[in-house]
This record gives sequence, C-alpha cells and structure tokens, in this order.
Amino acid sequence: MHNIAVIGAGRIGRIHASNAKTDPRIDLKYVVDPIASSADDLASSTGAKVAGLGEVLADPDVSGVVVASSTDTHLEFSVAATAAGKAVFCEKPIDLDLSKARAAATALGSDDARLFLGFNRRFDHNFRQLRDRIHSGEMGALETLHIISHDPSPPPIDYVRVSGGMFKDMTIHDFDMARWLLGEDPVEVYAAATSVVDPAIGEAGDVDTAKILLRTQSGKICVISNSRRSGYGYDQRIEAFCAKGLLRAGNVLSSTVEVWGEFGSQTDALQNFFLDRYAGAYRSEMSHFADILDGATPAVGYQDGISALAIAEAAMESHLGSKAVAIRY
Amino acid sequence: MHNIAVIGAGRIGRIHASNAKTDPRIDLKYVVDPIASSADDLASSTGAKVAGLGEVLADPDVSGVVVASSTDTHLEFSVAATAAGKAVFCEKPIDLDLSKARAAATALGSDDARLFLGFNRRFDHNFRQLRDRIHSGEMGALETLHIISHDPSPPPIDYVRVSGGMFKDMTIHDFDMARWLLGEDPVEVYAAATSVVDPAIGEAGDVDTAKILLRTQSGKICVISNSRRSGYGYDQRIEAFCAKGLLRAGNVLSSTVEVWGEFGSQTDALQNFFLDRYAGAYRSEMSHFADILDGATPAVGYQDGISALAIAEAAMESHLGSKAVAIRY
Amino acid sequence: MHNIAVIGAGRIGRIHASNAKTDPRIDLKYVVDPIASSADDLASSTGAKVAGLGEVLADPDVSGVVVASSTDTHLEFSVAATAAGKAVFCEKPIDLDLSKARAAATALGSDDARLFLGFNRRFDHNFRQLRDRIHSGEMGALETLHIISHDPSPPPIDYVRVSGGMFKDMTIHDFDMARWLLGEDPVEVYAAATSVVDPAIGEAGDVDTAKILLRTQSGKICVISNSRRSGYGYDQRIEAFCAKGLLRAGNVLSSTVEVWGEFGSQTDALQNFFLDRYAGAYRSEMSHFADILDGATPAVGYQDGISALAIAEAAMESHLGSKAVAIRY
Amino acid sequence: MHNIAVIGAGRIGRIHASNAKTDPRIDLKYVVDPIASSADDLASSTGAKVAGLGEVLADPDVSGVVVASSTDTHLEFSVAATAAGKAVFCEKPIDLDLSKARAAATALGSDDARLFLGFNRRFDHNFRQLRDRIHSGEMGALETLHIISHDPSPPPIDYVRVSGGMFKDMTIHDFDMARWLLGEDPVEVYAAATSVVDPAIGEAGDVDTAKILLRTQSGKICVISNSRRSGYGYDQRIEAFCAKGLLRAGNVLSSTVEVWGEFGSQTDALQNFFLDRYAGAYRSEMSHFADILDGATPAVGYQDGISALAIAEAAMESHLGSKAVAIRY
Repeated sequence: MHNIAVIGAGRIGRIHASNAKTDPRIDLKYVVDPIASSADDLASSTGAKVAGLGEVLADPDVSGVVVASSTDTHLEFSVAATAAGKAVFCEKPIDLDLSKARAAATALGSDDARLFLGFNRRFDHNFRQLRDRIHSGEMGALETLHIISHDPSPPPIDYVRVSGGMFKDMTIHDFDMARWLLGEDPVEVYAAATSVVDPAIGEAGDVDTAKILLRTQSGKICVISNSRRSGYGYDQRIEAFCAKGLLRAGNVLSSTVEVWGEFGSQTDALQNFFLDRYAGAYRSEMSHFADILDGATPAVGYQDGISALAIAEAAMESHLGSKAVAIRY
Repeated sequence: MHNIAVIGAGRIGRIHASNAKTDPRIDLKYVVDPIASSADDLASSTGAKVAGLGEVLADPDVSGVVVASSTDTHLEFSVAATAAGKAVFCEKPIDLDLSKARAAATALGSDDARLFLGFNRRFDHNFRQLRDRIHSGEMGALETLHIISHDPSPPPIDYVRVSGGMFKDMTIHDFDMARWLLGEDPVEVYAAATSVVDPAIGEAGDVDTAKILLRTQSGKICVISNSRRSGYGYDQRIEAFCAKGLLRAGNVLSSTVEVWGEFGSQTDALQNFFLDRYAGAYRSEMSHFADILDGATPAVGYQDGISALAIAEAAMESHLGSKAVAIRY
Repeated sequence: MHNIAVIGAGRIGRIHASNAKTDPRIDLKYVVDPIASSADDLASSTGAKVAGLGEVLADPDVSGVVVASSTDTHLEFSVAATAAGKAVFCEKPIDLDLSKARAAATALGSDDARLFLGFNRRFDHNFRQLRDRIHSGEMGALETLHIISHDPSPPPIDYVRVSGGMFKDMTIHDFDMARWLLGEDPVEVYAAATSVVDPAIGEAGDVDTAKILLRTQSGKICVISNSRRSGYGYDQRIEAFCAKGLLRAGNVLSSTVEVWGEFGSQTDALQNFFLDRYAGAYRSEMSHFADILDGATPAVGYQDGISALAIAEAAMESHLGSKAVAIRY
Repeated sequence: MHNIAVIGAGRIGRIHASNAKTDPRIDLKYVVDPIASSADDLASSTGAKVAGLGEVLADPDVSGVVVASSTDTHLEFSVAATAAGKAVFCEKPIDLDLSKARAAATALGSDDARLFLGFNRRFDHNFRQLRDRIHSGEMGALETLHIISHDPSPPPIDYVRVSGGMFKDMTIHDFDMARWLLGEDPVEVYAAATSVVDPAIGEAGDVDTAKILLRTQSGKICVISNSRRSGYGYDQRIEAFCAKGLLRAGNVLSSTVEVWGEFGSQTDALQNFFLDRYAGAYRSEMSHFADILDGATPAVGYQDGISALAIAEAAMESHLGSKAVAIRY
C-alpha cells in the first residue's frame, strides 16, 4: 500500500480522494487545503488527516502527491513535491504560462521526476479502445481525425476570466487527444473562433466556439470542434478516418431506455456532466498512479503538458491573426 | 410487352395500376370497376380503357389480370381469369372462408394455373435481404423467430366488421412471413388475444391485440406480436435467432434526420402508412408479375394462400378455446 | 455503520463482499463458508474474519446477513438468520421447491422478518428508468410486454442438473421482471420450450430455449423469450407497448466504439457476462440492504420469491402438458 | 405535357432521360449526343428521337432542354438554349472557369432566362428535411455546420485530370450545401488539403483529401470534410449545431438488416453509389423542372453556380497559399 496526499479539497480533489480511498493499492493519508473547513470535510469523509504541504512533503511515508489545487499552483507544488522525492499526479493544465512551464524543465522533465499529468480522457475506456484499434492498423493508416468536444453549458463568467482562455482551459484536452491519437505532433494550426454563446465571454476577451485545423509533418489533418454550450449534454465524439474505413467513439447516454412515439424514437439524455462521463477515467487515472508508485513510467508527463500548451498558444495566435501558425514546441 | 387489366379501382388497385404503367414490360390495357366514376378516374390517369370483366377475359391480347377488388370476389375472379387462360396476380387474402378456398383447388392449384398471391412483404427488400441471410446459414440454423407487426392506428369499425377478423385480415401477412422465413409449416398455434385498442372492436367480436406462438415439426418456435394501434407508426420488425447469432430487420424511418436536445437524441418518425412502407415491395410485385408473364413460376401461389388461412383459422380456434391447436393444412 | 456477514464465498458471495467493503454504511465483519480455503481467501482480501454461522448469528453486533450460499441452503439460512433477529439479503431463488418455500411463510413472511430477496435486475438503472417511465403514464397504460433474456452461452451440464431447470434458475428473473413491470400478477401461463442448444441439456430433462406467454387478470399479455445461448453476448432487452407508444430498454455495449467498413457499421460487442452487465445493480442492492439496516422496508421480499417460483412451476406444467396453466400463488 | 430534350447520353443523361420518361408532366421528345450509338441506345430505350442540337432548339414544341453533356459544353449549350427561349436544366458545375462563367451573366442571369442548375443534394429529402428544421428555428439559431462528404472510391485518373480539381468537381456540391443551409454566403475560406488516397492524383496536381473552413459575415463557421475514398461507402452526413441543440442528417443504408454476433452488431452496408443515394433527388429535380416549365422560378440558378465556383477558386488559392482567402463573388 502506498500512502498519498491530496492537495486541494475542491471538486476535482474530492474525486481523486474518493478514488484513492477505494483503490486497493493506495491509502489516502493526508488532505491539504488552505480553506480549513474544506480540508476538514474531505478528511472526515475519507478518514485522512488534515496537514500542511510542508508536513506532507517531509513525511517519508508519503510516496505520492496529487496536485488538485488551483491552476496557478500546479507548477509550484509539482516542483516542490518532485524535489521532495514524491511521485506527482498533477491536474491539467500544467500552467497557463508556457514560458513559465518551460522553465520547470530541469525540475520536472528530468529522468528522476515522476510527474503524471492528468489528461483524463486518455483513461476513458472508449477512447482507449478507439486508440488501440487505430494503432492496430485494422482499418489501415490514420489519415484525418475529427474531435468534437462541446460542453453542456458555459462556466460562470468569473471562472472564464481566470481560465486562461478556452484554448488553454478546454481545448487543451483536445490538443492532447489529437497528439495521442495522431501519434505525432501537429506542426501547424489554424483556428476559427468566435463568441456566440454568451456576450460576456466575448467581452472578457475570450471565445466560446471554435473550429481548429491541425496539420502534422507527415500530412495528417485534424479538425477540433469546440463549443462552451451544446444544448444537448456533453458531446464527446471522435472520428478517425483511416485508409480502409472509419473508427469512431460516440457519446455516453444516461440509460439504454428509448421511447417511440409519433415523433419517432428518442434515446435517453446524453450524460451531462464531465464527472459522470469520465468517472471511470478518473478511477483509471488513480490506478495508473498506483502503477507509477509501483515503478511504472507515467503514461502522460511533463512534455505532454508543454506540448498541449504550445498548441494552445499557437491556436490563440492564429485566432488573433487570422492566419495559420507554425507550432513551436 | 404484356397487356394486363386491373380489376378494382380502389386504393390498392390504383397502386397496382400505377406500377403497371411504369413497369417497362407491362402495358395497362383495361381497368374494371363496378363504380363507373372510380373506373373512369383510374383509366384517365393511366391511359387505360374502362371495360367489363367479360370483355377483359375475352380479349386474347390480355395475358394477365390483377385482382384488386373486394375480398369476397378474390376467389371468383381468380377462378374466372384462370379459366380464361390468364395469369392472375390476386391480392391477399385468397378468401375469408377456408373451406370455400379449398374448394377452388382444382381450378387454382393445378399445374396450368398461374396464380400469384400478393403477399407484399415477401417483396420488401429488407425482409428479402433478411431471408437471404437466414438461408445463407452464415449465423447457423434458425431456431426461433420474432415477428412484430403493429399498425399505426385501427381501421374504421365498419371495415373491422367485414374484415374476417384480425387473424385473417392482418396476421395473415405474419403467418405467411413465418412460413417463408421458417422454411417449414407450423404445426401448432397458441394465440393470446384481447381487445384493448377500441372497445367497438371487442363488441364486434374481434380482437385488436395478440401474441401468437407457432411451433414447427422440427421444433422451431415463432412469436408473432400484433396490435391494431402502435402510437408510433408502422412497426414492422423481425428478429431471427440463429445458432450463432441474431439477424434482424428494423423499421423504416421517414428520413435520416435526427435532433439532439436536452432529452437526448430523436430520430424522425417511422413511416406511418403501409403504402409508403411497402411502395418498393408493390413495384417488385408488379415486376415479378412481368416475370410470370414471361414464363416464370409464381413465387407465392394458391397453396400459400390456403396455408396462411389455415393458420389463421387455427389461431382463432386457439383464442376462443384458450388452448393450443394443431393446424390442419 | 452496520456490521454484516456474508455466507458463501463463491462467485456471487465475493461480489457481495466486495460491494459491502466499499459501501460507506456497511462493514463486512464475517465471512462464512464450509470450504476453509475459500473463506480464508475472501476474508483476507476484504479484511473480514472467518467464522461459523452459529458464531455470526450469536454476535449481537451483526445486524445483517447476506445469504449467498448454494441454493438448497437459502431457505434454511434465511430462516435461521431471521430467527436471530438479523436482516437478511438472500440470493434468488428462495428455494427450488415451492411447497417447502411456502412452509417458511410464518418465519419469513411475518411483519418482523426483514428478508430482501436479491432479484438484481430490479436494481439495474436501465430497467429502473424503464419502470419509472412506464409507471409515469407518459405513454399511456401498459398493454403488452416483451422480455428478451438470452444468456451468452449455456452453463456446464453439471450445473444444469442441479439447477432446478431453466424456468426456476434463469426465467425466474424474467418472471420477477414481468410482475414488477406489469404491476400485477399473471394469472395464466403458456410455455413453448425446447432443447436445441445442447443435446445434453435435453437428455438431463431440461430445456434451453423457451417462449412464454403470461396473462394478467386485467388482460395484459407478456412474452418472455429465453435461450441459454445467444452467440452474441448477454441479450437483456425489454419492450413495453403502451397505449400511446413504446418504451424499451436495450443492451449494454462494451464501449461506444464503432467501425465502418465495406460491410456497413459495426458496434463493439455486447457486454458478455452477467457480473459486468449487472455490476451497478449489485452495488445498488448492497446500498438498498444498507437502507434496510437503516429501517427501510425491503423492496423485494419473501412473497416476491414465492410468486416467481409459483409462475415457474406453472410454466413447467404448461410445457410438459402443452397447455395453458392457471397460476396458483 | 411539356416536350423536352436531353443533351448528352452518358451516365447522368440516361438518369435524367429515364426520370423524364416517368414524370407525368414531361414527354421526352429528343436525345442529342455526338456519339451516334449512345444517342441511338438512349432513344430506343426511352422512345425518344435522336436529333442534333440545332433541330432541337429550332423546334417550337420543345419547351425545355436538359444539359447533361460534358462540363466544357455546359455554358455554351445553356446559353444557346436560353437564347432559343427554352428553359434549361443544366448539370453542375456551370463551368470550370469562373471568369468565363461570369461572362455569361447577361445571357443566363437575366430575368428572362430560366436556368435551373442541378445541385442534386438540395433535392434529397433528408437534406431538405434537415434544412426545413434548421430554418424552422426549433433548435434556435444555426451557429456552426459540419458537412462530411466522402466518396466511396476515387475516380479514374483520366477523369481527375480533366475534372478541374477536387474543389470544383466534388466540393462544389458542399459549397452549395453550405450556402443553402447557412442561409448566407461565406466570406472567407481556409483549406487544408493533401493527397493520400492515390499518388497519381497528387502527381496530377490535384488533392484527394481536404478539410475546409468557411466563415460568414455574421460569424457562422462551417467545416467541410472531403475524401475521394472512404473505404466504407458514400459518406454524406451533415451536422448543424444550433443554439439549443443539434440537427443532423445521416447516411442511407442498403437495408435495415442487422446481424448481431460475437463482434457486436453490424448494419448493412452504406449505399455505395451516388446514383443510388440520390436516385430520389434526381427524380425530384425532374419534377422541379416540370414546375419551372409550368411557370415556377428555378430553385437553384445561375448565381448559385457562380457563387459555388467562386468559393472553389478561393479554396484552391487558400490551399496553394496556405492562408485564409477572402471570397470574391
């Protein structure tokens, strides 16, 4: 059993704490949060102790730390935990500032560092199955890729203002999926984006709707479609056009119940919330963290975080300049 | 080109006349109907002549006759046309009275007779594809069969009263489908039926809802589900459970358009009317009649009509006696 | 927290023990099994103690007992645990012998007894959603019901021989679903059954394929389709034909991945194993057992077990006598 | 009845001739083709006369002309027929040369001219239903649009060489669909294209795979996906993302038959050939031509042809220059 600590007792921290509690290889020893009541609540519901970050990092019985605190602390806490010899499971994004994130290369990109960056969609069993089948070659070489990623409804405008913008906050997942499925890094991006969902988002200088084209060195083309609001639930679909046919992963419905009436047939609603849609993915992430604590190499690491962020910055540059932009990793 | 006549200028007669007009091997020469205005309308819209049955049967240029008149005349007109040496395309059912229908065996069941009985579903390309794949053996031997056949809404009660009852009027199609797909005759029937759609149907001594079990000599079991009213369109589905898996044919939708909203996703409506659902089947029937006029053997004949009727009578006996009944062909 | 014991460390006992361990309101205190190695294994993986039944029933700290032992002990252990004042979560069927099960009415059917019979399908979220929507009346009154329940592949013949026959072993689930969804007890059954999956099953006096018709007092009709082998995974579908339309629950697929090729489009495989298909249902059962330990009334109890068994016996009588049989509760 | 002539007895000319023959308002009087055997064959199978273009245009009984000859003659024959006072049903594209097509504005764009340009997809009942529902506003304002249009397999390289390039030959349909569904003209295009299907296509200076972004004045964004080869049939899908949800039109399958096996469930193949997929659309086009001959205004005309061609030229410029290009209509 590996003792771990969860830093951050907010929504995503509570998910990781709960998964840590039920993972057979992990014991949740500490919970850290500057808001005492949040830390206390999570500690009491999980049987963990409340502690400060210093205490956690100094405890030789703690072998891993989950960084689920606010985005602006991801980098700092990951560096500190790595320096203390802990394996780190850090939520995405690694940071909102690419140059700052690059500056941590020595600390986090070294061979000794064990940083696992939580791009949760790689751990969804549907997308994993899709990737396995793309890579099996059963349908021939992958040629083009469509990623549809539309949220049910936009976040509060206060969140939007500190989010770093849609590309770094939301599309970052899709940039990572693109890299993971394409099997190579995009070299150029063209982004057409707008704000039609909520005028306040546009006034805040952000976009809420985008279609993004990525091109790789070998000539593969990827389309990403984003919207902050779908009107029909959490739309998470991927289509991989291969030389011999199409592989695709579809949405997850709330149940298999259908109703047939005069209108036709109607399915149940799409799962509407990312914590439901990716509940299994979050459990699998924790299981992978247990693998890392057992000695495995992180499946997603520092360089993946840098690469996704680099694409996001280039996409913003493309959007602002209305031109294709070469991506600098 | 083969000259034919259509007897009966009602709904189904007009369909056959229209298909005759566009079939490249057939010329529609005559239309026959005791209601002069109906005959005139159909003749003028198709370029055919109005005539009496005697004139038609006496015309040596007429090689085929379509009997689309009222059910009580099917047998008489088919016998007369056969006696005149014409090929006959007769609408189902062959008659409502099994013993009367049996009595025509010499006239209609002989080697010389060319009677094609219009069980239209055999000519639907979906069911034909289903049958071909069952018979190909790709999924192993057929073991059990489910036929779902629910009408959008019940016929007028005046029609119900002269229909011969649901089993002979509606289920007769399903009995024929069962024989065609099972590849052997059922030997026993058990029918559970009721009237829940319209009290007037029950008061008229008929049923509007039924689940029917058929068993064949070799042990295959078939379930037929019938309702005079679905609430969601014309439900025409078949599932064939085979040793290695399932083959099924589904419903036909009005279009491929879907809408996704908060409720989930919704297809367009099921095709709601048998003349739409089986438009292609009716054209294929006319093409098969052209084959017969060219010398082919009818794919569905007198004995098929007798067999379906015999099952219908046994089903009624089962329903009335609440017991399984052996079918006497 | 409620202390419970699990009796039986076989496949289903291990599921319940695992769910007890992760349920936030339950502590698994004891594991009981006559095979010491099985008991030891389960105890060590769950942190429970191995004990004998007497010790468990004598322990005042134990408030509930899960009976997951072999079928012939269900009744005896449930009676003993009830007598000791424990709440009981007993696996289906309650017994293979209806008269023996009836004889336990005083012990298990009393107001004091808290017997929860584990008809797991009632706890599947898809079927629960289906039932809620049937009962909401949104599509009008339920008229007829189709339950398709086909296993992926037949059990070992040694199991078949002691199973009590397909109706009591497998269809018992569907009889319970029928009662639950119809909202009333069937009064008559007609069963058409055969053995085509495995000759050894027929030689053992059992059937492996059946179509069963149930009728209720108010005139609702239910069709149950059973096969011990589907060839395509675990087929668990229900269609509820209502006055205004159809409500249905479909199968669960292994993933949302599809492949499109020359053949058409292909989904991923159906979930193939009941422990996968009903993993969530088993967790919900344990949660409901916690509700009972908190004071709730069992959602499925002794009389439900008797009723399902009574239908199964009548179905067998119908099959053997080839006639409809009135069900005696 | 309106007498018409079909110019061109190739594949598409034969379709239009066949539809003219069965349309109740149209008589096919003449067939024109420089290859005598082709003209003779089509004339004999349709009962039309073979004639030269001059004879056809001079015949006052001819009220309409279908121009289904080779692309380089579309403009010339349309102008000549218009000058002769005939209504014209011209196949797409109007020409491969935008400036040449623009030069015909006086002749073809005048109020007197009755030019119907055959963008067949507008007449597909699925896409028409999609458009009606977008325009009904039931799902709120259209925001973004995805058009997927992949051919089953690439044309012969000899055809590719004279096709005018994929954008003018194939994407032209999608540009027209985009305009029709968006309800406004795109103002900017960015095209990412490549040749991966067949090296010979790339060597011929053409592309076979493209993802194209269009933006309208009001800010709507449209993605078009093209491939000359799908591996899975004729992929013709459209998704319209609206403020309240999604409207989409899917592919058409060869039948409703499905097979379920160990792999999962499998549909029948997608319709594989555009003449099958759009058979109904071609019939509807001919019916619309009859409307025009009865006095209606063409639903698609000269300016639509110019606009689609202008987008195609801008897309090519974008592809060659790797930059977004403003569209000049």
